[in-house]
Amino acid sequence: MCGIVGVSAAQPVNQLVYDALLLLQHRGQDSTGLVTDDGGSFHMVKARGQVREAYRTRDMRTLLGSTGLGHVRYATRGSAASEQEAQPFYVNAPYGIVLVHNGNLTNTRELTADLFHVDRRHLNSDSDTELLVNVLANELQSQLNGAELEPDDVFTAVRRVHERVEGSYAAIALIAGRGLLAFRDPFGIRPLTLGRRTADHLPGVQRDEWMVASESLVLEANGYEVVRDVAPGEAVFITPDGELHLQQCAEHPRLVPCSFEYVYLARPDSTMSGISVYDARLRLGDRLAATVAEHAPLGDIDVVMPIPDSSRPSAMQLAQRLGITYREGFYKNRYVGRTFIMPGQAVRKKSVRQKLNALGTEFRGKNVLIVDDSVVRGTTSREIVEMARAAGANQVTFASAAPPVRFPHVYGINMPTRRELVAAGKRIPEVAREIGADRLIYQEVDDMRDAIVEGSTVTDLEMSCFDGRYVTGTVDDDYLRWVEANQLS
Amino acid sequence: MCGIVGVSAAQPVNQLVYDALLLLQHRGQDSTGLVTDDGGSFHMVKARGQVREAYRTRDMRTLLGSTGLGHVRYATRGSAASEQEAQPFYVNAPYGIVLVHNGNLTNTRELTADLFHVDRRHLNSDSDTELLVNVLANELQSQLNGAELEPDDVFTAVRRVHERVEGSYAAIALIAGRGLLAFRDPFGIRPLTLGRRTADHLPGVQRDEWMVASESLVLEANGYEVVRDVAPGEAVFITPDGELHLQQCAEHPRLVPCSFEYVYLARPDSTMSGISVYDARLRLGDRLAATVAEHAPLGDIDVVMPIPDSSRPSAMQLAQRLGITYREGFYKNRYVGRTFIMPGQAVRKKSVRQKLNALGTEFRGKNVLIVDDSVVRGTTSREIVEMARAAGANQVTFASAAPPVRFPHVYGINMPTRRELVAAGKRIPEVAREIGADRLIYQEVDDMRDAIVEGSTVTDLEMSCFDGRYVTGTVDDDYLRWVEANQLS
Amino acid sequence: MCGIVGVSAAQPVNQLVYDALLLLQHRGQDSTGLVTDDGGSFHMVKARGQVREAYRTRDMRTLLGSTGLGHVRYATRGSAASEQEAQPFYVNAPYGIVLVHNGNLTNTRELTADLFHVDRRHLNSDSDTELLVNVLANELQSQLNGAELEPDDVFTAVRRVHERVEGSYAAIALIAGRGLLAFRDPFGIRPLTLGRRTADHLPGVQRDEWMVASESLVLEANGYEVVRDVAPGEAVFITPDGELHLQQCAEHPRLVPCSFEYVYLARPDSTMSGISVYDARLRLGDRLAATVAEHAPLGDIDVVMPIPDSSRPSAMQLAQRLGITYREGFYKNRYVGRTFIMPGQAVRKKSVRQKLNALGTEFRGKNVLIVDDSVVRGTTSREIVEMARAAGANQVTFASAAPPVRFPHVYGINMPTRRELVAAGKRIPEVAREIGADRLIYQEVDDMRDAIVEGSTVTDLEMSCFDGRYVTGTVDDDYLRWVEANQLS
Amino acid sequence: MCGIVGVSAAQPVNQLVYDALLLLQHRGQDSTGLVTDDGGSFHMVKARGQVREAYRTRDMRTLLGSTGLGHVRYATRGSAASEQEAQPFYVNAPYGIVLVHNGNLTNTRELTADLFHVDRRHLNSDSDTELLVNVLANELQSQLNGAELEPDDVFTAVRRVHERVEGSYAAIALIAGRGLLAFRDPFGIRPLTLGRRTADHLPGVQRDEWMVASESLVLEANGYEVVRDVAPGEAVFITPDGELHLQQCAEHPRLVPCSFEYVYLARPDSTMSGISVYDARLRLGDRLAATVAEHAPLGDIDVVMPIPDSSRPSAMQLAQRLGITYREGFYKNRYVGRTFIMPGQAVRKKSVRQKLNALGTEFRGKNVLIVDDSVVRGTTSREIVEMARAAGANQVTFASAAPPVRFPHVYGINMPTRRELVAAGKRIPEVAREIGADRLIYQEVDDMRDAIVEGSTVTDLEMSCFDGRYVTGTVDDDYLRWVEANQLS
Repeated sequence: MCGIVGVSAAQPVNQLVYDALLLLQHRGQDSTGLVTDDGGSFHMVKARGQVREAYRTRDMRTLLGSTGLGHVRYATRGSAASEQEAQPFYVNAPYGIVLVHNGNLTNTRELTADLFHVDRRHLNSDSDTELLVNVLANELQSQLNGAELEPDDVFTAVRRVHERVEGSYAAIALIAGRGLLAFRDPFGIRPLTLGRRTADHLPGVQRDEWMVASESLVLEANGYEVVRDVAPGEAVFITPDGELHLQQCAEHPRLVPCSFEYVYLARPDSTMSGISVYDARLRLGDRLAATVAEHAPLGDIDVVMPIPDSSRPSAMQLAQRLGITYREGFYKNRYVGRTFIMPGQAVRKKSVRQKLNALGTEFRGKNVLIVDDSVVRGTTSREIVEMARAAGANQVTFASAAPPVRFPHVYGINMPTRRELVAAGKRIPEVAREIGADRLIYQEVDDMRDAIVEGSTVTDLEMSCFDGRYVTGTVDDDYLRWVEANQLS
Repeated sequence: MCGIVGVSAAQPVNQLVYDALLLLQHRGQDSTGLVTDDGGSFHMVKARGQVREAYRTRDMRTLLGSTGLGHVRYATRGSAASEQEAQPFYVNAPYGIVLVHNGNLTNTRELTADLFHVDRRHLNSDSDTELLVNVLANELQSQLNGAELEPDDVFTAVRRVHERVEGSYAAIALIAGRGLLAFRDPFGIRPLTLGRRTADHLPGVQRDEWMVASESLVLEANGYEVVRDVAPGEAVFITPDGELHLQQCAEHPRLVPCSFEYVYLARPDSTMSGISVYDARLRLGDRLAATVAEHAPLGDIDVVMPIPDSSRPSAMQLAQRLGITYREGFYKNRYVGRTFIMPGQAVRKKSVRQKLNALGTEFRGKNVLIVDDSVVRGTTSREIVEMARAAGANQVTFASAAPPVRFPHVYGINMPTRRELVAAGKRIPEVAREIGADRLIYQEVDDMRDAIVEGSTVTDLEMSCFDGRYVTGTVDDDYLRWVEANQLS
Repeated sequence: MCGIVGVSAAQPVNQLVYDALLLLQHRGQDSTGLVTDDGGSFHMVKARGQVREAYRTRDMRTLLGSTGLGHVRYATRGSAASEQEAQPFYVNAPYGIVLVHNGNLTNTRELTADLFHVDRRHLNSDSDTELLVNVLANELQSQLNGAELEPDDVFTAVRRVHERVEGSYAAIALIAGRGLLAFRDPFGIRPLTLGRRTADHLPGVQRDEWMVASESLVLEANGYEVVRDVAPGEAVFITPDGELHLQQCAEHPRLVPCSFEYVYLARPDSTMSGISVYDARLRLGDRLAATVAEHAPLGDIDVVMPIPDSSRPSAMQLAQRLGITYREGFYKNRYVGRTFIMPGQAVRKKSVRQKLNALGTEFRGKNVLIVDDSVVRGTTSREIVEMARAAGANQVTFASAAPPVRFPHVYGINMPTRRELVAAGKRIPEVAREIGADRLIYQEVDDMRDAIVEGSTVTDLEMSCFDGRYVTGTVDDDYLRWVEANQLS
Repeated sequence: MCGIVGVSAAQPVNQLVYDALLLLQHRGQDSTGLVTDDGGSFHMVKARGQVREAYRTRDMRTLLGSTGLGHVRYATRGSAASEQEAQPFYVNAPYGIVLVHNGNLTNTRELTADLFHVDRRHLNSDSDTELLVNVLANELQSQLNGAELEPDDVFTAVRRVHERVEGSYAAIALIAGRGLLAFRDPFGIRPLTLGRRTADHLPGVQRDEWMVASESLVLEANGYEVVRDVAPGEAVFITPDGELHLQQCAEHPRLVPCSFEYVYLARPDSTMSGISVYDARLRLGDRLAATVAEHAPLGDIDVVMPIPDSSRPSAMQLAQRLGITYREGFYKNRYVGRTFIMPGQAVRKKSVRQKLNALGTEFRGKNVLIVDDSVVRGTTSREIVEMARAAGANQVTFASAAPPVRFPHVYGINMPTRRELVAAGKRIPEVAREIGADRLIYQEVDDMRDAIVEGSTVTDLEMSCFDGRYVTGTVDDDYLRWVEANQLS
């Protein structure tokens, strides 16, 4: 998971891209990068860690130019600590291109071989983003014809990218001195939204300003009006003078957005594919309430509690629907630090207790229903149940706003391997025992889909980790085994 | 406002104090300091900013010792940026003493003169904490009698400190190689709690471990059992081998804890003076509901919204009590960065919009009741009302869980001067106009007191900024004028 | 002026390249860069300032691989402070190439236009090194034929580089996973030496190790045997398994090494083009002695003094030859710091006095002959004469081991524009007045040439700034005006 | 060994003290500190490493005030890396005092016990400087009488310090808001010089400015006129308005300056006790020439070579006196870096080869006479001899400008223990074999004394490491054993 943003404006964009990255920080905190195009020269700063700590005044002073893009990264492949994996990636021929990317390519093995042996392009990392920018560069190179770059050349190159590349990708690129390009994979798995600030907001300016970003709140919070999502397969090209070009570049585009954005990735104040994330979470609570009512003796439950922050809307709605008291018995520690390795001391286990604290007064002697957004490894859930019991809870029912996670996720969210998924190959009562809950209630798969898409024009969702269906062609058992063998542990 | 913690343990305390400071981070983010006593040698690290960024591995490696204390600072006097104001403060005679302090002394002018002219002690900053440690040092010096330091010498010195010093202070000190001292002003204005981990938790250890901290959650989250609050005027002295000595050192102690802790300072998962902060906030919501019901036509209000995070419990309870839908229409941006000053660019105003985002779907066409914990300057409230209207709200009612703030706060919370307090000398409808709300409803003063103390043994609260009564003797108009002339703007 | 080094070894090279850079530090202190090739992946670290401060342990840990190169930079074009100008430069197609360069290209305007319009390659800086690596990349690209890269392909590309590029350049490049390439311009203006450590020095290793560097002392100090200088126009290609390929790639190579290396650039313990720098400096002193004897009444001179460190050998030899006492009356301050700009304080002028101190006892009442390596702007000489007089010197004769500098240097040494050269268009007595000396004696042009080449096979020297003859074709008045208009002030 | 400087001026002194520290950098590079007195408030910055890297602009901006002092440290006791040992040291009662110190106290065990048990003062380090400032503070405290501090109170306190403290110490202190104090031990072992800039150099200023520093060059290079050395046992007190008070505070002062300053510690452009260091080194060369002539067949020696930089004057003079060719065959590497510890790589031995390089052409086939300032451990000498032979030397004669070092140095120079001194208990031919030289010639003890004091009024020198005589009373075998057991290895 990552967050990306690109801006083409009539004024310096360094602070604006920086502000946008802060608003995307929840999508990745491993590294960040910011690049500006200053009349054909790129200025780039990349650093580990969070945005707030990454950019210093002297960095910002170098980031000149009125076109720019930025990235926050949550490691999905490769080592989280590696600076060599930090985005954006740069290639200097043709034209000079920088690119940022949210998603995950699934035919990386084939692409790597082709680039090395056929295209003779050098890959200096294991990043699939470096693959993506090199494929794009190669296809732009093959459009070279002596004349200047036209929007159609760009769209042709994106068309070729869609043909060569498989997986999920929402990408933003700068072509030095020529413009800003944004495009989205033919299934629109990862989000990308287009915003505009019209010329009349800007004194003395004759052009519109444009922003593309992973989430709509970024546009709104920075005074941009949401135009619409970039369509699956579509490419947007904005010239340095603010002219917008759009083209559908995929043969058979079909919108299948990632369900996880609604469950916990996206900010509740974003709207994706026309669906308000906050409202989707309320509806997940509604549906979950019905399932809970079916499986649990409601008279038994004294209080409903969310795991802050992502399950709060679902839990609140569920409590209201069931008429049970809602209390926030878990308090989230906002300031999480490090465990220092001291000579001669043993390494301390990282624990949920560093992230959450339980209020004794809310738990003592009560039967609690804890609502979380999902259960993945199960280790966190087990610790939460333990904390509730240690705080004095009598009986603990655990409810998940998402169905059991049983399959790997290969489209840009870092998921454990199958054997680490607590629900893979297990029945629900077994999982309940595993996490120590008296009772465990999952959202139904259909309920999740319906809750999310209700009231929208979306008809399908990427839900592979729940149902094992992978929309891109080549995700098979061989691939999944390779992914698991090469994954972050 | 600051957060303090001290530990006397049977093992290295650097990581433990660090973890405790993270849990106190909400009490101050301007600077932090950590000191350990390593068999009579102090190791100290101080730095600007947050705990997470302040301590590096190489710092932690120097912080040896099994007694230690820490501090997080929210500037109340002096320049926030000044490293010279960072706590702890150290004096090397007698014995070597380091001290941290939460609160504010109100007779600093007299103390400064005495220390300079009579005691010939050097003050290297404007910090009242440096005053406090020097007064303590001076009184310990006058106990010197050739024999080793006894607990009674320490208590006599604290007794003399209570006589010389006025204002609010919860303090923790280390006397090099001799022990950890904690004491609280005779009114107990600022909080301080004592916790213990008994020997049976520690293999091979024959002593108890002790922690004192500003808030009880710090004890609990680190596996310490809460013993009780340090009493107003009381001093606690713990020798290096873990022996605890307690003595009441004030002539007429009387518990008058600061009401602001309950309104917004403390974490909801803390208990102070026997009162759960979370429960107090729920009760503030209950009482406020009654007042709202009196003054507002309830049928008119479509939705109740908190300003996260501190007003959430009050707002939720109010909504439930009034049977109005509760929604979180404001989303708090967790990652707030800087505004860089670029050459040739104007300085941007800091804005609430950097901290909050409004979900359009929740506001559009609705009559909203916004609940905040308090209204101080009014500038934030005005921006919030503007955001609600910009997001499409039809009618905006604003409710404050605390009464109008009309007087300066002199006991350790950085409050603006009287002329900056929006409610000072104004009637409520005027304030409503000032912040742009259609209607403004404040908690009643008596309701606030009752809501907080209900069910506890506390009979009085420090509420001077609401009612103008200052419990310490010498806070008069001359003093208030001097404070305002020397305050942070 | 810069220093470069490249190594192909049978073991990790990070420390070795770092050590080599320290030994080249006198050639440039503005920035430094180090890159290693780790089985086809590049690891690169670049930083401002000196080597000692630039690389941290965590940087070194990332610099894996047994082939590497490094650079120290003295800004000749562009802003000294710009990190974007720091070498090495990287291009990712074809193959992935990093390159470092000592020298200065003189047809940059034509090259830039060609790369932009014809080759569609992006230049992200004003660095001529970025031009050089892109020209090389482009010529390698045009050799692509589906087969793997052969040494002959590399040599063909270098041949094409010699055809397209004008000026001075000693360059070292890594072609990712394919080998280390070093080449030198057809006049051999800037130095480059090849060294070897044979397999028998390395237990269990079956290959030779190779190092190329700007100066021979770097090879010797690191245990490498000097093989010989890379010839003018020649290219060296070393495959990852240590196989060495050599080829002359220029049509009409002719050795015309830069005279300034012998006068002050190179370390005295280096040998270049078969000439010991230390011995050349002694001979410069011999020749200068004769000229001094001609023009100055020797009985008048009490003492000869060098300006440490570069003129020491010449001055010592001159003193011995003339039988005059030699004393070191100027002491060089090794530790030079910064002048901090304080608010409200005027900026202090940088002064020679920060770099040199005069020993009063050596000057008082004496007639001194001061020997410096050269006189360029004259400002330093004037300050030195002033210092000598302030220290009590009676009469000051100034002697320069090099002839008058009257023309710009365009081959990689940062020289002022013509109007800043104190000797440009002036007769020697005028210059003497300008610098305040009682008498000024310059080395004769022929004496300098003869002194340097004596006993070697070198027949010509690059001496354009003394005699105005530029060996590369296109350095004309138009070019010189453009250089001066775009130079560092 | 350390360098110290203090300034009382009519303008900000931060840059001036910084510049002075750079000029003292050769006296210590382990840490540095700078403190200013800003109307009674101290501002202090301390850091590890060299001056150039230690102070940043933001540090300098805090260092306000027109009185200040600074320190560069070469660790003599305690860990070099420990920041807790960095000077200056501060005590806050009475008055507030900061102090820097060059030298070494020899009765630290007694002082530590007294301060702990009698004075109840806390020592937070093993630094004897912390002892010194506490003794001074204690004695000032006992002068407290209700009235303001008078110069006589200060002198009385210094008198008491001389009584309590043994060893070598040149010290500078600031008493907050009251003045700058400098004093020197009763034997004047470590140097301290007083300089003045009279009011007429400063427009609009009615007072003189004063500087005290370890070496006279610091005064001269900063435009201060050398007044004279501070006398042994004397104290200088300068009030904030520039009034100078002087008093002899020792009972039986007697000048016995450290001989090592002339041999290698001090800069050649300094004058100490009326003796020019440069001239003393020339005379050491003269005397050594005579001894060499006695012991070595001169016809055999082809060339004389110094080990730069400290033995250069002696070697040059010796060569001239003996009529042998002088050459600089060793070149000093100015830029020395680190050896990085890489995982899995063995630690490399630090070697003289990193510091020196030998010019092959100067050694090949020659009989060389190498002159060094002294021989201490012998390891460096052995490596130098090896380098000469590896560079092709035929025969190597080694001459030391100082006599054999056979006893520990306890007055502020970090010397190895007796068993590590190559000459301790050995005859000269044995030492020659040890270092691998064909012949080894030492300066005679009397010659060294005579060479240094010739032409001055100095009658005695501190030469204990050559002759075993310790001028301070209590340095006996018990003490030497304790020192050796607690020394840096």
